[in-house]
Amino acid sequence: MNSAAISRFPIPDLASLPEDVRARIEAVAEKAGFIPNIFLTLARRPEEFRAFFAYHDTLMDKETPGLGMAEREMIVVATSARNQCQYCVIAHGAILRIRAKNPLIADQLAANYRKADISERQRAMLDYALKVSRHAESVDESDYQLLNAHGFDDEDIWDIGSISAFFGLSNRIVNMSSMRTNEEFYLMGRVPRGK
Amino acid sequence: MNSAAISRFPIPDLASLPEDVRARIEAVAEKAGFIPNIFLTLARRPEEFRAFFAYHDTLMDKETPGLGMAEREMIVVATSARNQCQYCVIAHGAILRIRAKNPLIADQLAANYRKADISERQRAMLDYALKVSRHAESVDESDYQLLNAHGFDDEDIWDIGSISAFFGLSNRIVNMSSMRTNEEFYLMGRVPRGK
Amino acid sequence: MNSAAISRFPIPDLASLPEDVRARIEAVAEKAGFIPNIFLTLARRPEEFRAFFAYHDTLMDKETPGLGMAEREMIVVATSARNQCQYCVIAHGAILRIRAKNPLIADQLAANYRKADISERQRAMLDYALKVSRHAESVDESDYQLLNAHGFDDEDIWDIGSISAFFGLSNRIVNMSSMRTNEEFYLMGRVPRGK
Amino acid sequence: MNSAAISRFPIPDLASLPEDVRARIEAVAEKAGFIPNIFLTLARRPEEFRAFFAYHDTLMDKETPGLGMAEREMIVVATSARNQCQYCVIAHGAILRIRAKNPLIADQLAANYRKADISERQRAMLDYALKVSRHAESVDESDYQLLNAHGFDDEDIWDIGSISAFFGLSNRIVNMSSMRTNEEFYLMGRVPRGK
Amino acid sequence: MNSAAISRFPIPDLASLPEDVRARIEAVAEKAGFIPNIFLTLARRPEEFRAFFAYHDTLMDKETPGLGMAEREMIVVATSARNQCQYCVIAHGAILRIRAKNPLIADQLAANYRKADISERQRAMLDYALKVSRHAESVDESDYQLLNAHGFDDEDIWDIGSISAFFGLSNRIVNMSSMRTNEEFYLMGRVPRGK
Amino acid sequence: MNSAAISRFPIPDLASLPEDVRARIEAVAEKAGFIPNIFLTLARRPEEFRAFFAYHDTLMDKETPGLGMAEREMIVVATSARNQCQYCVIAHGAILRIRAKNPLIADQLAANYRKADISERQRAMLDYALKVSRHAESVDESDYQLLNAHGFDDEDIWDIGSISAFFGLSNRIVNMSSMRTNEEFYLMGRVPRGK
Repeated sequence: MNSAAISRFPIPDLASLPEDVRARIEAVAEKAGFIPNIFLTLARRPEEFRAFFAYHDTLMDKETPGLGMAEREMIVVATSARNQCQYCVIAHGAILRIRAKNPLIADQLAANYRKADISERQRAMLDYALKVSRHAESVDESDYQLLNAHGFDDEDIWDIGSISAFFGLSNRIVNMSSMRTNEEFYLMGRVPRGK
Repeated sequence: MNSAAISRFPIPDLASLPEDVRARIEAVAEKAGFIPNIFLTLARRPEEFRAFFAYHDTLMDKETPGLGMAEREMIVVATSARNQCQYCVIAHGAILRIRAKNPLIADQLAANYRKADISERQRAMLDYALKVSRHAESVDESDYQLLNAHGFDDEDIWDIGSISAFFGLSNRIVNMSSMRTNEEFYLMGRVPRGK
Repeated sequence: MNSAAISRFPIPDLASLPEDVRARIEAVAEKAGFIPNIFLTLARRPEEFRAFFAYHDTLMDKETPGLGMAEREMIVVATSARNQCQYCVIAHGAILRIRAKNPLIADQLAANYRKADISERQRAMLDYALKVSRHAESVDESDYQLLNAHGFDDEDIWDIGSISAFFGLSNRIVNMSSMRTNEEFYLMGRVPRGK
Repeated sequence: MNSAAISRFPIPDLASLPEDVRARIEAVAEKAGFIPNIFLTLARRPEEFRAFFAYHDTLMDKETPGLGMAEREMIVVATSARNQCQYCVIAHGAILRIRAKNPLIADQLAANYRKADISERQRAMLDYALKVSRHAESVDESDYQLLNAHGFDDEDIWDIGSISAFFGLSNRIVNMSSMRTNEEFYLMGRVPRGK
Repeated sequence: MNSAAISRFPIPDLASLPEDVRARIEAVAEKAGFIPNIFLTLARRPEEFRAFFAYHDTLMDKETPGLGMAEREMIVVATSARNQCQYCVIAHGAILRIRAKNPLIADQLAANYRKADISERQRAMLDYALKVSRHAESVDESDYQLLNAHGFDDEDIWDIGSISAFFGLSNRIVNMSSMRTNEEFYLMGRVPRGK
Repeated sequence: MNSAAISRFPIPDLASLPEDVRARIEAVAEKAGFIPNIFLTLARRPEEFRAFFAYHDTLMDKETPGLGMAEREMIVVATSARNQCQYCVIAHGAILRIRAKNPLIADQLAANYRKADISERQRAMLDYALKVSRHAESVDESDYQLLNAHGFDDEDIWDIGSISAFFGLSNRIVNMSSMRTNEEFYLMGRVPRGK
């Protein structure tokens, strides 16, 4: 494997991309300081790029009383680890560290979410996310009752399950395209700013 | 369970929906003669509705030299069966019967795709789709070589894997929301027209 | 694969069969209007044919207060689906549709029995049937207590488990011999008579 | 659990049994010196008793050029061990020791058939038997080719698969009825006669 | 495979071994009347030999109020059976028969510990040992509470889990080196002394 | 869970420990700058402590022509990730980063070793280590042949398998005792010295 490759599939020239796709990439590059490989890998198919990020954004760029943005990232890290998706674990681990202002939580969740420093409520959230990820066929009312008892309402449960389901899609695309993880993610959020 | 319910979540009033969402639903209703429940279930969240169907359409409403529309539906039926998604197996089984002009193929694939009346090439296609669905972490170059040897090019392989990944998302949303299957799908494509 | 073949093994000439075996086949042919392939596949070994159908008949051609004939077929469809036995799912799906006078139930059970239109009692029956099918080693008193609480007596439980076990045998023989499904089964029980 | 019980279900009085069932039990008792519990457990349902033993006898009381009687018992022990069936492992382990005139082989096969003192041909036989037992849905022509290359003809392969399938039924009935193993089996065939 | 070989790896000459290693082997040979193959297999690497037996002895040669020596052997037999380790099942099955003064218990546990003649307390002990062996990642406080309720204190639970974990190591070394089982173990403890 | 706890079990006072145990702990503390929790957790049982570290050291503190020290740590990280052992993944991830002088490799291996920047030879090494970890019962000569073809001799293969087996023990003890990971490990080896 060429360790410099971004993915097994060709990466399009940015200049050749549709305006909205290029604008989205330039925006993320300006904010992050680099272009995460998922943008470059999907850009070759603009329709899939647009649908993927539209779905992503509506689930992830949201803060509700029942489900914070850091908690949404927790779901991504825990389910992606079980699906063995290198890019998702490392990139979203970085985002989680930043959103949770916690340099340890991502590695803990990736290794074994049951042993991470999380609340009982978050443990129930992740148990459900993993169930949707691995055994969705057996989800039933008892799952809703358990999560309701932990203070999640039905809309939260839809979000938890949908994030798990959406990243199941993302995990599979990353693995099937052998997408590489940008090196910038590994250290992000680990060292306190100002040090 | 109330056997008349469409899903565990509330269904919005059509009149309350954004114009584009309602238009899409009316279009499918006119074409099919009824509204498939997946449209009603997702409509409550217009952003997710739009992203879901945009992703779906770009992968499924496509005919390429390497991968026909009926073959795309084969992938849906075989992977959804393994994920135990009732709606996807029955609804896309109906579409497959129509596209393939074959009243038997969907039930064969749903039960055991290895014993269905398909070509060796289609068997390789489904083996890969199932691998992406169940063990994407171990996809590697040997999978590409095998599929290339059967005449699939890399873009076809991206399509096969993406369809499997996208319906993995769909399967999980259906199961987590206990979405019911419209009764119209069960018989569709089974009886030759004109009889 | 020759799509016209009945099974991977040779099919004997009906005239060459022992009298009782031929009589049984002629009886089923007269009743059904065709010869289900399981009869033709097993006829080559008359002793196995006799034992197989004797076991089948004593478990399936029985109606008890606790377990109706349609419920017995439900067990066959749900467990055979999990064992990926094409013939058993499709042929017994047809019989179930007829016995339950319900054109939808077989496809629902085959896809995901947890989401089918069945009673809580039938759900418990199928949970147990699946446990015997997949994890019989861990059946214990708690299973009997649960089923007793749903109104099944111990003889019913023996029946449920035996049907699951017997069709586990049948599923394996079908798969190992690549037995084909008769085309007649696919549509049977789907269209109301007289229409 | 009452350690003296034969099974979870009631055992009928021998005098009350149909003549043929009682005769069969008396014959085995005379030959073995005791009544194996499988006979007593099934006798309460004479039809099932007759079908079970008819199927058993036609598969097991047979010696063909390709598959000896000891090899048939090897299949039973190796597949029953994987299904965690105590009665089948211990009772057929005893029969295997006697038929193979080998006091070690049954314990070796029960623990890990891949490490037992068997031929390459027998290893291929057991690999196939285990595949039928655990993953029959994926049996295909490559299995036949491999076994043919080891000198098994198609009738032998039918036998191997059928023995595996039949004892899968037996294993499930034993486990669901918590049938006990007769104490006589444990030591049988371990100590050379005359010592 | 050469059925006379002790393991896939070379066995050192006893005379060439470090004094302490040879002394340990001579002691066990004097006590048992033969040298168990695990000693000969590990002796080639004296440091590993010393560490392995030191760990073994501190866990197994111990009798506490909560966990007897026979119960420790039960753990070895039940977990090694699930790991398919021929040597461990047969050799420790022999030791268990002797320590428990019960010629049947080892074969029962090896086949299916849930159906063995053990107490409810021992069943809970083995359930936990198997959980550590197969799913240690999900051990949590509920396991401790359950075992405490059965009268095991936390030190007992450490012992149960450690024995399961240590023999998981042993099982893997035996399987990776294809270590043979000494013939002496098979019959040991089966026939009452003096008969 | 008290996030400050070291493990679920009590930690002994260092002053109360046997001389050799305390000396070992002081040595590692001096070298690392802190006491890794595995030392504190095991110290309560000095015999187990001594055996555990003796086994660890003889396998890990070794550099052979066929297997470097960094490669030994690769085996630990890849197998511990699959066993979901938080402490082992994070602590040995740190050691691997240092030994390999590579800040990225540990996170890559923990997420999906098949997608890490490693050689074909190292991929074969890890495939075998994972097979020993998850399916040791099926290790056979073909594994040795494959590894020999990659330049590993039989002693290397013993080492690879033993490291996998030993850390399987370690993973289970960590999970059963809910041992926490020292915070120092998370960042170790990620930032080049001098920055």
